[in-house]
Amino acid sequence: MPERSMGFERAVFFSDAVFAIAITLLVIDLRLPEAAEAAGETPIATLLGEMVPQFLAFAISFAVIGMFWMAHWRRYGLVARVDERLLWLNLLLLAFVVLMPFPTAVIAAHGGDPGAVMLYVAVVAAAGAASTLAWAYAWRAGLLVPGLTRRYVRMSALRGLTVAIVMVATLPLLAFGPYLVEWSWLLIIPAQIAVNRRLARVRAEDGIPAPA
Amino acid sequence: MPERSMGFERAVFFSDAVFAIAITLLVIDLRLPEAAEAAGETPIATLLGEMVPQFLAFAISFAVIGMFWMAHWRRYGLVARVDERLLWLNLLLLAFVVLMPFPTAVIAAHGGDPGAVMLYVAVVAAAGAASTLAWAYAWRAGLLVPGLTRRYVRMSALRGLTVAIVMVATLPLLAFGPYLVEWSWLLIIPAQIAVNRRLARVRAEDGIPAPA
Amino acid sequence: MPERSMGFERAVFFSDAVFAIAITLLVIDLRLPEAAEAAGETPIATLLGEMVPQFLAFAISFAVIGMFWMAHWRRYGLVARVDERLLWLNLLLLAFVVLMPFPTAVIAAHGGDPGAVMLYVAVVAAAGAASTLAWAYAWRAGLLVPGLTRRYVRMSALRGLTVAIVMVATLPLLAFGPYLVEWSWLLIIPAQIAVNRRLARVRAEDGIPAPA
Amino acid sequence: MPERSMGFERAVFFSDAVFAIAITLLVIDLRLPEAAEAAGETPIATLLGEMVPQFLAFAISFAVIGMFWMAHWRRYGLVARVDERLLWLNLLLLAFVVLMPFPTAVIAAHGGDPGAVMLYVAVVAAAGAASTLAWAYAWRAGLLVPGLTRRYVRMSALRGLTVAIVMVATLPLLAFGPYLVEWSWLLIIPAQIAVNRRLARVRAEDGIPAPA
Repeated sequence: MPERSMGFERAVFFSDAVFAIAITLLVIDLRLPEAAEAAGETPIATLLGEMVPQFLAFAISFAVIGMFWMAHWRRYGLVARVDERLLWLNLLLLAFVVLMPFPTAVIAAHGGDPGAVMLYVAVVAAAGAASTLAWAYAWRAGLLVPGLTRRYVRMSALRGLTVAIVMVATLPLLAFGPYLVEWSWLLIIPAQIAVNRRLARVRAEDGIPAPA
Repeated sequence: MPERSMGFERAVFFSDAVFAIAITLLVIDLRLPEAAEAAGETPIATLLGEMVPQFLAFAISFAVIGMFWMAHWRRYGLVARVDERLLWLNLLLLAFVVLMPFPTAVIAAHGGDPGAVMLYVAVVAAAGAASTLAWAYAWRAGLLVPGLTRRYVRMSALRGLTVAIVMVATLPLLAFGPYLVEWSWLLIIPAQIAVNRRLARVRAEDGIPAPA
Repeated sequence: MPERSMGFERAVFFSDAVFAIAITLLVIDLRLPEAAEAAGETPIATLLGEMVPQFLAFAISFAVIGMFWMAHWRRYGLVARVDERLLWLNLLLLAFVVLMPFPTAVIAAHGGDPGAVMLYVAVVAAAGAASTLAWAYAWRAGLLVPGLTRRYVRMSALRGLTVAIVMVATLPLLAFGPYLVEWSWLLIIPAQIAVNRRLARVRAEDGIPAPA
Repeated sequence: MPERSMGFERAVFFSDAVFAIAITLLVIDLRLPEAAEAAGETPIATLLGEMVPQFLAFAISFAVIGMFWMAHWRRYGLVARVDERLLWLNLLLLAFVVLMPFPTAVIAAHGGDPGAVMLYVAVVAAAGAASTLAWAYAWRAGLLVPGLTRRYVRMSALRGLTVAIVMVATLPLLAFGPYLVEWSWLLIIPAQIAVNRRLARVRAEDGIPAPA
């Protein structure tokens, strides 16, 4: 692994800070239902029960941002240096990461509205697209560490898109109601595992070191 | 101590950023009581007096997140390298750290409700469990620095669980009212001191360097 | 490039954290219109349509803070060491960066009010001025890396001011209504590209390495 | 300057992140007055005029947190290594830094109430005290870099207390109304300059390198 410049480290730590804040702001919309709270006679346990959709939205968005951070972490371990265009593409990705708390709040409050689901999927898909754009640019501009193979870079691009692909692919299920769509997102887990396995095989065959 | 990779540093600084934001967001719910403020005749000093439960909740949660950060700081001083599974377990811990401002706001507003106390203890216990899981995994996967002994790793796991153990152990006191439970959390201080002393002894006997 | 001191790194990472938080807080004011939401019959898609001014304000401010961060990133790649005065000037810049979410919220809610436009431009211009002041001070105090030429430093100062200059120059268009002013901000893009090209030429002629 | 351990860097960057978030959260309470905004006929310029106390509170608190950060930055340039007690004292300082947005919001809304002024001064004084405690501990525990003299360490402690001392010393002016107290805080500027000069002289005489 080559030594990185201070400019590289700043880009990476700035991204980490943005990911960290976006993932932490998710908690801000977790609030006891105000009307019931004001009435003041309902026990907390009951109020918490009504918050299940909000906790689910928190958990899903935490996992989604977490996966984007993991993808960022893996990829920049294979980036040797940055240039200004890569930084702009990275900022584009961060813009959609920063947006995440908004569709999360919308889907938490209106999980049964198809528009809420489509908004959520649109933001995740945009983040996935920006992330892939940055990765493809880094490959073409020769910013990656030496020794990577074309098929490894492609498989890695695919892995970064898993979340977006599953979410877009299950969108037609909206015809059967929004909740079915949301449950179908659990498919992300086996999809990620499958892609990870294939990527590990490609890595082994092509002699590429694991990220660390 | 071995040199760490950039991937290691990112994982640690990302965690630091999440801890820092979660601990700082605790201030957001400190607000003068609105109704009284709107009336506008009550002096600030009186309003502050009414906020004592909120200040207490702030102080407790600041101390709790601070202790989780200290545990993280100590432990990653003994971790030599990270892999993706450890990062996922670390994200699980961070998810509960990020949640902390929510139970803090609930207990600040409803300290007398047993459900508020149970919610608070549940989140702290979950964070403690996730933290222990990550530590145990790092030990088994051989990610720790060489020279650690099994009993040191176990004692360290126990120390990380002190807060959770005291909080779960005093939960039955709920039968005598929620405030007694909250005061009993002061037991965390002597418990931590006792465990720290034993750990220092084990460290000395087994020749393990102090974290720095 | 010289090795930097820990004090230098802290100054840079502290700035990165402030930029990251300011850019992330922009999402906090993205909320579905409350009245319509409470009525509860309007589909989300319609509510999102009403939010177009807020999304625009988010996008503009994200781009503006992003450009200030890029300028900071480029410049501190050419700063060799910091002193306390530079840190104070840097804090002055950060004060206006931190303010950005406020004029953003105002212009999102009152885009048609000339006062909202003037407030927005004033904060951006103040940030530009503070940034230039810090850069000029670093040059005069001999804090930059060796090998920079006076004309390069001047052109770089101009680039950092592009956003502010375009925004102040188009302010008289307020006579034709505030929206025209806001659209004219798209001129920032060609202006930046033109200045970037000239700067690259100066860099090549004067033999200054590209930031990385 | 000695190389620092990763544990040292984490402590410093965690502190930076907390400072950065606390200083950025100050913007959250800057909001147009709601009642007037809802009426919707008042021009923004008028509303901004009513916000002068809030802008002042923002500016003062930004400067205060900025000064605490600068003191932290200077001091940890002279700290060679950290131990757990220093980290706890550092967390105590951070607790009061994190609190700052609360007294800032109170004084912005109730600048004319003596209780608001006293609350503000109490939090700043507590932060100053915690900061001095940490510094004194680091000196006594031998955690500072070699070559510092006792009188330099004392003068540096005094400098870190300047803000708190001026604020506490001018508190009796409350008898003449709270606004006089707030204006008297401008005395912090000449006080800091005077202490800085003396410190620079001591540094020169005792042969201690300037922070960088």
